Amino acid sequence: MEKNFVIAIDIGGTNIRLALVSQENEILLKFKEPTGIGHFNIIHKLIEIAYEYYPNEISGIGVAVAGIIDREAGTVIKSPNIQWLNGVNLISEISERHNLPVFIDNDANAAAYGEKISGAGKNYKSFVMFTLGTGIGGGIVINNELLPIAAEIGHMTINPNGNKCSCGNIGCLEAHASATAIVEYATSHIKNGVESILSRLYNGNYFKITAHDIYKSALEGDSLSRNTLKEAGKSLGLGISNVINIFSPEAVILTGGLVGSWNIFIENAIKEASRRSLAELFNKTKIIPSSLGDDAGIIGAASLVFKGFKAF
Amino acid sequence: MEKNFVIAIDIGGTNIRLALVSQENEILLKFKEPTGIGHFNIIHKLIEIAYEYYPNEISGIGVAVAGIIDREAGTVIKSPNIQWLNGVNLISEISERHNLPVFIDNDANAAAYGEKISGAGKNYKSFVMFTLGTGIGGGIVINNELLPIAAEIGHMTINPNGNKCSCGNIGCLEAHASATAIVEYATSHIKNGVESILSRLYNGNYFKITAHDIYKSALEGDSLSRNTLKEAGKSLGLGISNVINIFSPEAVILTGGLVGSWNIFIENAIKEASRRSLAELFNKTKIIPSSLGDDAGIIGAASLVFKGFKAF
Repeated sequence: MEKNFVIAIDIGGTNIRLALVSQENEILLKFKEPTGIGHFNIIHKLIEIAYEYYPNEISGIGVAVAGIIDREAGTVIKSPNIQWLNGVNLISEISERHNLPVFIDNDANAAAYGEKISGAGKNYKSFVMFTLGTGIGGGIVINNELLPIAAEIGHMTINPNGNKCSCGNIGCLEAHASATAIVEYATSHIKNGVESILSRLYNGNYFKITAHDIYKSALEGDSLSRNTLKEAGKSLGLGISNVINIFSPEAVILTGGLVGSWNIFIENAIKEASRRSLAELFNKTKIIPSSLGDDAGIIGAASLVFKGFKAF
Repeated sequence: MEKNFVIAIDIGGTNIRLALVSQENEILLKFKEPTGIGHFNIIHKLIEIAYEYYPNEISGIGVAVAGIIDREAGTVIKSPNIQWLNGVNLISEISERHNLPVFIDNDANAAAYGEKISGAGKNYKSFVMFTLGTGIGGGIVINNELLPIAAEIGHMTINPNGNKCSCGNIGCLEAHASATAIVEYATSHIKNGVESILSRLYNGNYFKITAHDIYKSALEGDSLSRNTLKEAGKSLGLGISNVINIFSPEAVILTGGLVGSWNIFIENAIKEASRRSLAELFNKTKIIPSSLGDDAGIIGAASLVFKGFKAF
């Protein structure tokens, strides 16, 4: 019997997603667990459950991880948001117990490849993908191939005197335009006495405010919330203009929870990118949302296995 | 008789270089003319001279141009420093008169490929090349292949409130770390009354001061000159850290006249890059000077032809 499925695992800063994926990139089963607890037990448990459903049809395991990856060795070189993975060799950790070939890559790279093979990137030979969430990641496709590079576009310095980033640097894109940065900007202004309807939420427990709350308040006309998203959008736009000038891509694809805030956050980003990019390149670049959303990483992780032992 | 040579032309902002190059990447003849005058006549004339030497052995013409290029169409989409080339189709312009196949690419891309096939990039699978001159260009090799992208790293914004750039943007790397930017920084400070031995040069005709003069004065201990190179070096270092975090290259290769100022300008750049890059990536990246110097563009342009009709 031919083995038609792979187990795809996407380990992000917030959640671990696991799915069974067919060769046609269809998702059959899907599980989600918080990343913070359980560590490997959760991963092993989920693999076993998937295995129970299709005991004879699983050909391998593809893992996408939020962090800097050594694809060939299978090691997580550094994952700032998933400390327990730092230095871990995921290939040996997983394959020793489950006796299946294991392939790993960075999660934003995998997501970009997922969008390429069955999402918004399908019709573009070259694009840059931004994953906008707790942090900011990237994946880059040129000539229909995912570039085997770190693509840490969230850690591009966009302001030499900007905000402190979790990586230790000053002024990273991630420290200005991630969900974390947006929440930080708004709550610090509230604490400094700026008027906002956000201050009425959660009985003043500001630490509970989310980027989504800020977006909702902005839509209601709250000016702190609007300014927060505008400022973050300008920073994102600067980052987008840099990748347009460097990669001259056919498209920039945006994904992650913050893409929901398109008509303030992203519109300001596009305006700023158009101001700063070389016009000849900007005019050829479409800036669009992803179509797979959270599933992009899963589809990309699955393709690691389908592409076989060829590193991508 | 086999055709063993190609004509390679490198059209930069200051000079047009033309050479006869062998399949072994040896340069046989070499001419240099100022870019500003004569336009196409100079190019046609140089091609004819080369042709006289080896009338039966020239298989094609490779052209590298400082600007944004449409490789397939053969058009110079935009060249800010060589206005008369804007919108010109170089393939038809040259091939109509000389009846030889013509290939074109961006000059920094060609230089990167030149360093890859016979220079400082020979032993690296992946590297980012910075051409540091009047402007700042880039070329990127990943998995031994030149990426077919604009690679306009000189127009990456490194400071949202920085200097005005010739491209119309504010805060481009080129507006902070090119030879032009270095001269501008020093002379504007002299005009504002800052003490410097530079002010004694050229009988006060400050517009004659060059980046090389500033480097020499810095070596003599002139503090304005030292500060100028340190500031420019910090900006370059920020740009280098961005490409390290994005491309995770094995090497960053620096070329152009300013590389002569290694021990102030480049040393400060390396210090800043080490502060700002992700340590796991920085520690794996060698920062080195080019070995071909001005010949890199010529060698790269020649390889356009040797690689035949395959666009690179």
